[in-house]
Amino acid sequence: MDENLAIMDEDEVHADRVAAILHAVEAGDIGRLTGLMAPLHAADVADLLEQMDPHDRRALLALWSGGIDGDVLSELDWSIREEVIDALPDAVVAEAVRTLDTDDVVDILEDLEPEGQEKILDALEVADRVAVEQALAFPEGSAGRLMQREVVIAPEHWTVGDAIDYLRAAENLPDQFYHVILVDPRMKPVGYVTLGRVLSARRDVALRAITEDSFRTVSATDPEGDVAYMFNQYHLISCPVVDAGGRLVGVITIDDAMNVLDEEHEEDLLRLAGVGDESSIADGVWDTMKARLPWLAISLVTANIAALVVAQFEATIAQVVVLAALMPIVAAMGGNAATQSLTVAVRALATRDLTGANAWRVVRRELAVGLLNGMAFAIVMAGAAYALFGAPMIGAVIGLALIITLIVAALAGIVVPLALDRLGFDPALSSGTFVITLTDVIGFFAFLGLATVMLT
Amino acid sequence: MDENLAIMDEDEVHADRVAAILHAVEAGDIGRLTGLMAPLHAADVADLLEQMDPHDRRALLALWSGGIDGDVLSELDWSIREEVIDALPDAVVAEAVRTLDTDDVVDILEDLEPEGQEKILDALEVADRVAVEQALAFPEGSAGRLMQREVVIAPEHWTVGDAIDYLRAAENLPDQFYHVILVDPRMKPVGYVTLGRVLSARRDVALRAITEDSFRTVSATDPEGDVAYMFNQYHLISCPVVDAGGRLVGVITIDDAMNVLDEEHEEDLLRLAGVGDESSIADGVWDTMKARLPWLAISLVTANIAALVVAQFEATIAQVVVLAALMPIVAAMGGNAATQSLTVAVRALATRDLTGANAWRVVRRELAVGLLNGMAFAIVMAGAAYALFGAPMIGAVIGLALIITLIVAALAGIVVPLALDRLGFDPALSSGTFVITLTDVIGFFAFLGLATVMLT
Repeated sequence: MDENLAIMDEDEVHADRVAAILHAVEAGDIGRLTGLMAPLHAADVADLLEQMDPHDRRALLALWSGGIDGDVLSELDWSIREEVIDALPDAVVAEAVRTLDTDDVVDILEDLEPEGQEKILDALEVADRVAVEQALAFPEGSAGRLMQREVVIAPEHWTVGDAIDYLRAAENLPDQFYHVILVDPRMKPVGYVTLGRVLSARRDVALRAITEDSFRTVSATDPEGDVAYMFNQYHLISCPVVDAGGRLVGVITIDDAMNVLDEEHEEDLLRLAGVGDESSIADGVWDTMKARLPWLAISLVTANIAALVVAQFEATIAQVVVLAALMPIVAAMGGNAATQSLTVAVRALATRDLTGANAWRVVRRELAVGLLNGMAFAIVMAGAAYALFGAPMIGAVIGLALIITLIVAALAGIVVPLALDRLGFDPALSSGTFVITLTDVIGFFAFLGLATVMLT
Repeated sequence: MDENLAIMDEDEVHADRVAAILHAVEAGDIGRLTGLMAPLHAADVADLLEQMDPHDRRALLALWSGGIDGDVLSELDWSIREEVIDALPDAVVAEAVRTLDTDDVVDILEDLEPEGQEKILDALEVADRVAVEQALAFPEGSAGRLMQREVVIAPEHWTVGDAIDYLRAAENLPDQFYHVILVDPRMKPVGYVTLGRVLSARRDVALRAITEDSFRTVSATDPEGDVAYMFNQYHLISCPVVDAGGRLVGVITIDDAMNVLDEEHEEDLLRLAGVGDESSIADGVWDTMKARLPWLAISLVTANIAALVVAQFEATIAQVVVLAALMPIVAAMGGNAATQSLTVAVRALATRDLTGANAWRVVRRELAVGLLNGMAFAIVMAGAAYALFGAPMIGAVIGLALIITLIVAALAGIVVPLALDRLGFDPALSSGTFVITLTDVIGFFAFLGLATVMLT
């Protein structure tokens, strides 16, 4: 509780500031607006812009365009980035992107329409423009897109003293770097030394003697998801990127990897819920509708299949109308059990904890859990149905149907995502819709089929 | 597709290695087992142990206990950590924990039973034991538990040269550090300098002149979720931790924050699915049942409420049996729309993109989307029902019911998690079960109520 109270207090402070900012915007009071906005971190400015309604956002940008720098653009959610860039004078955009590292410029460019891209490329200095265009030549979602090209390297024969002298003389060091990468004469990385080691070793120590065991490289064409997994799995802080010939072309740092991990989590969560990947809380009504309609449409089709199954048993239902009242129980239990099994499977596939090595064991486990939970609820529900309707056979029917439904739910929840993964599709796409429909169809069939045999 | 093929290839390599390891375990071939295990990273050894079935795991540990070091224990999922520690000789455990930083020892201890904790505390040197016990005095899930106590500090008046000389002479520097923290005479942190800056500045430069703007501190009692959010939001790489008096007591590094972020994602995902927080793919049948049964039990109760609503309309259903076949369509559309709305809301609350500043705008958006999607599907489904059953009034009933259901689903999906958040509960706990039951109950009531009025 204390934790949440603290957050609520912060929320209130935040709400007060937002109110003051909106007030300054309405009053057109640039001085007061600047006073309120200037102390904010770029990430907080971006959040503020995302949370405002579009009308207020335009008004704020018109008053305070000079305050939007490269860091703010870089932090903005893609869903409103284009809108913000369009609202800014060209000179402000040009100034903003010139201060960014190339990886951040690439990140901004990726989501823009061609004309927006041109506007930004034109603003860059020639060397940066070339670097950005080279990065864009790598496939979307690859390590080559994610990396920064600014690297700190040293010939493999250097000493600590050589490295320190070089760093002191160097201009234009990257904003962030955590290792000195050792390269051979053909620019192939052969190891790296943490800055902590460089600082704590004597000047005459060879860099080669203090390299890290954790050294790994990634290929520029590797998918960013694999790179993020590697950072998380092996606790990397930065990782050199090599081209097809094994030559150093850039470096990826942990903050970029953390971002990718966060995005992949979001993607899994939204896909499981049947919401388009790129949904954002900042989207308008139209974009939100577009993201959700396709899955609802699929759901309408699959629900009609379940309806057709039920329709086959109309004669039974007409005879024993209480069956219609019990149907939602079969559907709810099946749906919930399927969601449980499915979510655990999708998560375990994403973290690579579910592999060929343990798939069968997990399938057997799900089967056992489905059977045991099914029997437990069968007894409870059969008892309840008997108590409510006084008909022991109705209790037997709902009980047996629950056992079958929970077994199907548990199995479908693991087998469908595993199969999708093997076939090269994202298991999160198996989403509620398919697995739950499958469970519903078999559950209704079992329930009404048993009822037909046992009650009529 | 290429991405997934690459992963499948890796999976096959992985499966081959696992098979070879199991074979060596069965044959009791220690030499071959060591040859296969030794090249693996500690994180991969831990994954392997998690993926094996319990019987094979015990056999492997009996053969190869000496190979389990502190890093492996540290990487193990909590669900099998206790089992592994119990299986190891005391001397191996003692040796393993002695090599770890205090934050990793704390992380291991947290999840153990008291006797397991004693075994590990006894193995530590006195100074480390005191440090670990001090960390355990902070509340669970706080920054104090997450931080490492090994810090690299410098008096605020030092120069770059002073810092380098100190680091060269220092013994026992932490494994990882990214900043030199400047402290005042009372040990209050006043700024920090990145190692890159220390390395690239001249010896006579004052550290105070090259501190970072990003400098922030956290309090040892702050919840770890807030700390992880801060790292992600402000791109921190390390962050000093202070006590109630503002004095430096430790430092948190980005890899720990990344871990917390990952765990919080997992928690949200599992809670949304109604699976206990601490479910793991390595759990056995019994633990899995225990994690899932409570939510299924709640779901059984709420499903019975929906059943009671339907039971009120038995007379109507007896007259127009096709209503029973159409009920699953109302339930499926409502359930899917509610899941969409709910998932987007829970995610946005977790990333703090949904706040008091935009809550009403998002609620209005959900309402509009619910209405528009409802109308779209009402037209389609009303047409389909008319075409199938030739009864225009049945089409009108299902159409109107879908509009009401989708509006309720969209609203419940946002209002319930917002309300839980305001009341200080985790919004992910609003889970499918509550929101979907609410939608079902109102959807069935609308559908069958309209049918009663319009058809009978």
